[in-house]
Amino acid sequence: METGLFTANNVWMMVCTALVFFMHMGFAFLEIGLTREKNTINILFKNIFIITVGLLMYYIGGFNLMYPGFEDGDMGLLKFAGFGIAPPENGMTPDYADGGYTWWTDFLFQGMFAATAATIVSGAVAERIKIGPFMIFTIIYVGLVYPIVGAWKWGGGFLDGLGFYDFAGSTLVHSVGGWAALVAVWLLGARIGKFGADGKPKALPGHNIPLATAGVLILWLGWFGFNGGSVLSADPALTSLTLVTTCLAAAAGGVGAFILSAILYKNYDLTMFLNGILGGLVGITAGADQMAPFDAILIGLIAGAIIVLGVALVDKSKLDDPVGAIAVHLICGVWGTIAVGVFGAMASFDQFLIQLAGAGIVGIFCVTCAFLIILTLKKTVGIRVSKEEEIEGLDLHEHGMNAYPDFRMNQH
Amino acid sequence: METGLFTANNVWMMVCTALVFFMHMGFAFLEIGLTREKNTINILFKNIFIITVGLLMYYIGGFNLMYPGFEDGDMGLLKFAGFGIAPPENGMTPDYADGGYTWWTDFLFQGMFAATAATIVSGAVAERIKIGPFMIFTIIYVGLVYPIVGAWKWGGGFLDGLGFYDFAGSTLVHSVGGWAALVAVWLLGARIGKFGADGKPKALPGHNIPLATAGVLILWLGWFGFNGGSVLSADPALTSLTLVTTCLAAAAGGVGAFILSAILYKNYDLTMFLNGILGGLVGITAGADQMAPFDAILIGLIAGAIIVLGVALVDKSKLDDPVGAIAVHLICGVWGTIAVGVFGAMASFDQFLIQLAGAGIVGIFCVTCAFLIILTLKKTVGIRVSKEEEIEGLDLHEHGMNAYPDFRMNQH
Amino acid sequence: METGLFTANNVWMMVCTALVFFMHMGFAFLEIGLTREKNTINILFKNIFIITVGLLMYYIGGFNLMYPGFEDGDMGLLKFAGFGIAPPENGMTPDYADGGYTWWTDFLFQGMFAATAATIVSGAVAERIKIGPFMIFTIIYVGLVYPIVGAWKWGGGFLDGLGFYDFAGSTLVHSVGGWAALVAVWLLGARIGKFGADGKPKALPGHNIPLATAGVLILWLGWFGFNGGSVLSADPALTSLTLVTTCLAAAAGGVGAFILSAILYKNYDLTMFLNGILGGLVGITAGADQMAPFDAILIGLIAGAIIVLGVALVDKSKLDDPVGAIAVHLICGVWGTIAVGVFGAMASFDQFLIQLAGAGIVGIFCVTCAFLIILTLKKTVGIRVSKEEEIEGLDLHEHGMNAYPDFRMNQH
Repeated sequence: METGLFTANNVWMMVCTALVFFMHMGFAFLEIGLTREKNTINILFKNIFIITVGLLMYYIGGFNLMYPGFEDGDMGLLKFAGFGIAPPENGMTPDYADGGYTWWTDFLFQGMFAATAATIVSGAVAERIKIGPFMIFTIIYVGLVYPIVGAWKWGGGFLDGLGFYDFAGSTLVHSVGGWAALVAVWLLGARIGKFGADGKPKALPGHNIPLATAGVLILWLGWFGFNGGSVLSADPALTSLTLVTTCLAAAAGGVGAFILSAILYKNYDLTMFLNGILGGLVGITAGADQMAPFDAILIGLIAGAIIVLGVALVDKSKLDDPVGAIAVHLICGVWGTIAVGVFGAMASFDQFLIQLAGAGIVGIFCVTCAFLIILTLKKTVGIRVSKEEEIEGLDLHEHGMNAYPDFRMNQH
Repeated sequence: METGLFTANNVWMMVCTALVFFMHMGFAFLEIGLTREKNTINILFKNIFIITVGLLMYYIGGFNLMYPGFEDGDMGLLKFAGFGIAPPENGMTPDYADGGYTWWTDFLFQGMFAATAATIVSGAVAERIKIGPFMIFTIIYVGLVYPIVGAWKWGGGFLDGLGFYDFAGSTLVHSVGGWAALVAVWLLGARIGKFGADGKPKALPGHNIPLATAGVLILWLGWFGFNGGSVLSADPALTSLTLVTTCLAAAAGGVGAFILSAILYKNYDLTMFLNGILGGLVGITAGADQMAPFDAILIGLIAGAIIVLGVALVDKSKLDDPVGAIAVHLICGVWGTIAVGVFGAMASFDQFLIQLAGAGIVGIFCVTCAFLIILTLKKTVGIRVSKEEEIEGLDLHEHGMNAYPDFRMNQH
Repeated sequence: METGLFTANNVWMMVCTALVFFMHMGFAFLEIGLTREKNTINILFKNIFIITVGLLMYYIGGFNLMYPGFEDGDMGLLKFAGFGIAPPENGMTPDYADGGYTWWTDFLFQGMFAATAATIVSGAVAERIKIGPFMIFTIIYVGLVYPIVGAWKWGGGFLDGLGFYDFAGSTLVHSVGGWAALVAVWLLGARIGKFGADGKPKALPGHNIPLATAGVLILWLGWFGFNGGSVLSADPALTSLTLVTTCLAAAAGGVGAFILSAILYKNYDLTMFLNGILGGLVGITAGADQMAPFDAILIGLIAGAIIVLGVALVDKSKLDDPVGAIAVHLICGVWGTIAVGVFGAMASFDQFLIQLAGAGIVGIFCVTCAFLIILTLKKTVGIRVSKEEEIEGLDLHEHGMNAYPDFRMNQH
């Protein structure tokens, strides 16, 4: 292989790594924007914790757990000893990964993905979870659950053998986070005031919609790397197709959600528009390299509709998900996974069934794990802050500070 | 051609595409920062609408309209049938565009450009335009007017045949948006309170200068892709020269505007500094690959001065442009176009005349189109919100929410 | 050399240049976030001034001063005549820099670095320095002091001959800024109210912690370019190792600071977490290409601890550094420099001594220069705003505006 091609591939993968890293700022902005001011520091703290500890956990064991046996080919889930050992002999050569990138790049790109799963949960449990138990959950979920599931497909495990396809992680990343979000929201209960005495949901508006909007735009930007990097090289045809399908699905998702919500609720709802974009992005993620542009638009439009209906369904189910993470990451993650069997180059009834099975198996495993972890935490240390703390805000109680301490009104 | 070179070129073009996409966050921040809090959601909604619908319109017809006849070389403005059809046979090979990028990359890079023209208008008409008519305008302007003008030069049309030069769009993007902004501002009228009974302009200060500043820095970052990608390959000499001239013109534009406004108004005016940077960026855009660094600095300094005088002129003309879009995108866009005939490698009196003619022809066409579209909207559905809505804010009336609903003052 | 390799290298270096540029937005957000609302415009103005004027100063003389004699190899500090002269004959060919980048890219990448040193000072002196003298200081420090020190090592000067190693500038950038910050803070004195009558430090909380958090994430992103670009090519093994060590040190720095501050102060302190990340980033910068991942984690953890103790030490010393710049850039800069002699591929007692000597020599020179410049300014035009201006805010007095003029509380 030409050195130039190897180098260009690795440059692209490093750029994508940086973009996926930047998604953590997008998640942080989205979450704080859609929640109340009194819990802002707490949410930022969780996000910073996730990206730093997530990377370290992936170094300590996640990477080897997810991609086992690179030296001698065996799967052995238990055979990992930390990333600290030397790189494989060919780790810096084009032999390592068909010239797509080096072993270092591999680790870092995948490490940035790992932290994403926990971040998805963070938004759903915002404004009432205790910080300590959340940190323990993050360590276990990013350190163990995520890489085990990842190994089933991307590590060459049984889902891969089954023919299951998940290009960039509608299931392996987004639904992994989404299932845990569902379990956590259910075990935590709703925020005080979310449901009235009559059981009807009330809006608890966030405090900074400009930052939430910026968060979505940053996430879209990050998806250039999330999907574009999942080609695992800079192959011109595949990477550029992937960016086209990704952006068209995002656009269609937003427009779909905007139009449906305008019809249903007679309102130009910015938040729905934004979540529609995210739904489109999550929806295209499983098959971004398998779709024609028109497929991508259809997948996005449907994802946008799913968002509007999904948010209503979550509310109906008396689940309190402040940022819409369940609709975006779980429901659209499952939708995107199934869509691989419905649209594009791989569409067939058999593939549809395989996709359904894969999404289901991962769901069962993630729900079980999340339930065991979070229930254990609930029964031991407790997972919910006190009523007083929730009302006065987590910033004051857990962190002793607030987010805008010197913000004053002008006298004009 | 080496695969490595083709791949490296395409990587650069995809990075530039991502950067141009990110400019939409810059525009959004700039616009909301410089306007009043009560209209923030409305502006964000417009920006999200533009980027999503702009991309979809470019898919539906804009791309084929702007770059007609890639299959058989004929111009035929009417011969476009949507991007949904298959890529050209050589679309993924180095034959497609001298190895600079693939057909998919081509579409996406150009699609990101297309939305920019409408975004420029968005800032100028902020705080008083009805959202419905604005959406209709955007669809027509991005879907038809922008690609028709683009075809005249970048699609190989008559302006290209004339020898007109516009490297990255001082005329084809910025003045196309700027002329429509001028027409729209004139047909809309000024915001309530902008001009006193004596006709003197009053400042209606924006609500978030930190975000406006961030917007300008993001736009500058995006211009690395806007100009750098307009090389249409990663040619080392040309791309790196382009980034140098772009950054030096931006710096000089800012410093020029800062110094002139400090002399004229005895004040260190941050907003003028920021608009000077944007003026420098727009000014260098037409000739970024034709200038030596010193030329770029001169073009920037003059653009900076133009901003200070242009903003005053717009005010004098009783035009109400909340973000300075006319001075930045229209006046500096024309200046940058003419500057190609004055400075750098192409400077000559003949070229100067051609540049002037090109800028003028585009101006006449855009003013005519914008006038017809907006006047039609004005006479039918109306383009301006009610007095009550304008005073209470568009967020409440058009969107039923506000931008910082849970933002509270601290008790320190 | 293959054209593809040269092109891929140059693409990477241009991407890194863009990322380092973007760091200036990170610095701006960090600084305004950690300071009071009444001084926000002033800080933004300073940051915009630094990046624009810094680039122009680097064009006028800094680049040639720092990398002297590219034509005939002599050092001649006085032999520079501005960047306006033509590029070297081989400046656009692979011969210029072993095919790593073009001469234009070289200038722009280094120019983005140059402005960083002054930005570091900006945060430390915030909320009380006069804008005029600060601008004069910036011009001299970026235009002369920074490139002279840079020439000693990166320009092939005596520190390079001595065997001193500083990969991306723990000493040459961060401590150069940090020493000046120390001198400036000392000559300026503390802000009114920072130290009580009993001499005890009081917290003067900032006004926007979300933006400060975003600033740190943007800086981390920028460090992909700051360190990754310092490889001066896209060499796959070296660049990807550099990104791994950079990110692991950042993560470890944050976690180290978080844990130590939680132990010492029984609090989950977000600000400390954030500064720990920055400390880890500064700490790894001198040896990012020489460390194994585990070394990087150790360097980061120690840097995180240094931040917690360093911030306390600065407070104890009655120095008032609103953003923690001295602990982050100076102390961790020195730590990172020394760490090259302690950890990783170059570790040896001799190297340790050389690193110590290099850091010390640079420190003596920078302290001397900064002292002479700032003392001269103090004795002539004065460097500190009036008491009235400090209390009412620099925004009102120096700029006649404030940062959020139309920000209103909602009536919900």
